[in-house]
Amino acid sequence: MGDIAIVTMTGGITAPRGVRAAGVHCGIKRQALDLTLVASERPASVAATCTTSQVAAAPILLCRRLLSVGRFAALVANSGNANACTGDAGLADAERMGQVAAAALGVPVEEVYVASTGVIGARLPMGKVEAGIREAASRLSPEGGREAAAAILTTDTRVKEAAREVQLPEGSFRVGGMAKGSGMIAPDMATMLAFVATDLSVPAPLLQGALNDAVGGTFNCITVDGETSTNDMVLAFANGRAGLPEALPASPALSAFTQALGDLCGELARMIVADGEGVTKVVEVRVRGARSGAEARRLGLRIGNSPLVKTAFFGQDSNWGRIMAALGSAGIPVDPARIAIAVEDVPIVRGGIGVGTEAERAANERMRQPTFTVTVDLGLGPAECSIWTTDLTEAYVRINAAYRS
Amino acid sequence: MGDIAIVTMTGGITAPRGVRAAGVHCGIKRQALDLTLVASERPASVAATCTTSQVAAAPILLCRRLLSVGRFAALVANSGNANACTGDAGLADAERMGQVAAAALGVPVEEVYVASTGVIGARLPMGKVEAGIREAASRLSPEGGREAAAAILTTDTRVKEAAREVQLPEGSFRVGGMAKGSGMIAPDMATMLAFVATDLSVPAPLLQGALNDAVGGTFNCITVDGETSTNDMVLAFANGRAGLPEALPASPALSAFTQALGDLCGELARMIVADGEGVTKVVEVRVRGARSGAEARRLGLRIGNSPLVKTAFFGQDSNWGRIMAALGSAGIPVDPARIAIAVEDVPIVRGGIGVGTEAERAANERMRQPTFTVTVDLGLGPAECSIWTTDLTEAYVRINAAYRS
Repeated sequence: MGDIAIVTMTGGITAPRGVRAAGVHCGIKRQALDLTLVASERPASVAATCTTSQVAAAPILLCRRLLSVGRFAALVANSGNANACTGDAGLADAERMGQVAAAALGVPVEEVYVASTGVIGARLPMGKVEAGIREAASRLSPEGGREAAAAILTTDTRVKEAAREVQLPEGSFRVGGMAKGSGMIAPDMATMLAFVATDLSVPAPLLQGALNDAVGGTFNCITVDGETSTNDMVLAFANGRAGLPEALPASPALSAFTQALGDLCGELARMIVADGEGVTKVVEVRVRGARSGAEARRLGLRIGNSPLVKTAFFGQDSNWGRIMAALGSAGIPVDPARIAIAVEDVPIVRGGIGVGTEAERAANERMRQPTFTVTVDLGLGPAECSIWTTDLTEAYVRINAAYRS
Repeated sequence: MGDIAIVTMTGGITAPRGVRAAGVHCGIKRQALDLTLVASERPASVAATCTTSQVAAAPILLCRRLLSVGRFAALVANSGNANACTGDAGLADAERMGQVAAAALGVPVEEVYVASTGVIGARLPMGKVEAGIREAASRLSPEGGREAAAAILTTDTRVKEAAREVQLPEGSFRVGGMAKGSGMIAPDMATMLAFVATDLSVPAPLLQGALNDAVGGTFNCITVDGETSTNDMVLAFANGRAGLPEALPASPALSAFTQALGDLCGELARMIVADGEGVTKVVEVRVRGARSGAEARRLGLRIGNSPLVKTAFFGQDSNWGRIMAALGSAGIPVDPARIAIAVEDVPIVRGGIGVGTEAERAANERMRQPTFTVTVDLGLGPAECSIWTTDLTEAYVRINAAYRS
């Protein structure tokens, strides 16, 4: 891409031009910010991927309905309450959030998206929520990104924002986003939300394609405890405010956008994995030599979700027998005699057999780092996939057992 | 079954007539018993189910080969070393164990089964193992069942034995067995072994059918951490020493045998779940109202393997949102609006919505017991399945992180 540059910049969802945001405290939580509003200066195209859970929360049902219209004006999101398992009344609450935001902003209700994250099974305090939406609408600002990113957090310990500027010969555009979700995958909390804006003009089908690519290689490749939430949502909108021509299929601009979006989602995804009081290790499990990317991903997730492997990460123990056992149990044909495993640059298994105790000691040394890579080579084909996972710690159990008690 | 009685009796693998056993210390472990020999007084029919792991240990490969012959004379099993991920040399070691036992007992080598459990990736100390087999052969006794059951343990804290006597109008027969596997599903340890003997005469195909039925509803319905081991094996043999006629298809004797075998396997399976230092709760997750037993089982396992659900069990918290989220994430169509959940006799969800905080408090009370039942009614069909699981505790993490450090 010769004269195209992708530059990391500060900021998040409001880094792209024509995006304003606000985060307020409306009273769902006792003290913290709990309501986010994001608005596009002009109607935007939109794309989203939602949870595959059969027990989808009310805002997910609403989001799926709006996507058939396919235009975006604003997003309202609350934290502290997932509006999940709340039945028809909960769906009406989600619709009402959209109506109040649409009225406050003077935009069509079918262009207002709603997201929620927090405790499952409780009704939203709609009086507080409605007042909060109106307050947020009055505070929208191109500087409001960070406050908006703070107001979607639950047990997260850090705000998660990222942005890129893409420089093309004909001008520049920006991509910015924010995410919520802690490495702990918090108790009762909807696992993850991510919202991304761009000021490039991208037709909805191309935007959806780029988002699917980006999510497949990033948010869908992180795992902390294998849980799938009722409220997971990744949404992207493109408002064209950069003033560049609309991105066309197979154009350099679309290609650069897709790359920047993947880059951004990867950064946000790793922030999610790294966050969380109980996590002491962030581990890249790289499965290579697979017959297909899908098989590599499933094997990587099997390793990344194995409690025995994850406790070994915590113990800084290059316990490769647990990795072999996880590989064997995924229901995917593997040939043990071809498997090689390395921790960083240290091979510990070759031809399915341990290299030796000296190698294991060297690997244990590498595992003292807060982040390290475990590479598994299946020796079966050309495909590979990286999964980001964490260790499993006593703190995880303590926090998740005590949360509601 | 009118005049048929199934009576619980003491003892284990040697409760049936014509079975002798011994357990010795051969030196794989520093101190404890680590080698088991079980012999049938006369050639027996045999059936087995082995791990589905793609990384199957050497004794599993040998077992699969012997099953095509289909006759049983003896079983040799060691603990402390899984003989897994040991390549061709490991397979030769397993074969050698069979040869030494066959020679010591004067039986055909193709009738001697081998099993191992313990650390993955290390070669067996064959000198010690061979001497141990010879010693065990010299000590075989109809009273050796308990010592044999002790010598297959790894991190188990208790010997696991069970036996039944089945009284028919024409006489009685016995079924007895032993198992290994701790609720903790121990680090590096092959998950579970179970061996069952009967002195009824049962043709191999009928024995395999009865074993499949029994395992499907018992050992395959327990879960502690969702791991599948390289060495799992359940083996049954039938030597006909009770002197009753051979069990025929659809006969009352076969039906009584199948029932007794299921009963016995259920008892051994629950012993496995209940064992382990980290476990404070044993929970029956009963999924009913499913379209099929297979779907009920998958949903039950999803709940029983969810870290968030299991930490809530530890916290004695009737956190039904986590159960709903687990139900939604299994990839099986469910209708949230039809779901009902109860803890023991206390309904906490009806029509997919929480019953209320008072009900949850009552449910939390029930969860103070060491064992309780969570019933999930999907409202979709007539099928059901019960899964036995445990809580996830800080001790689990501590033990599994520290084990090799």
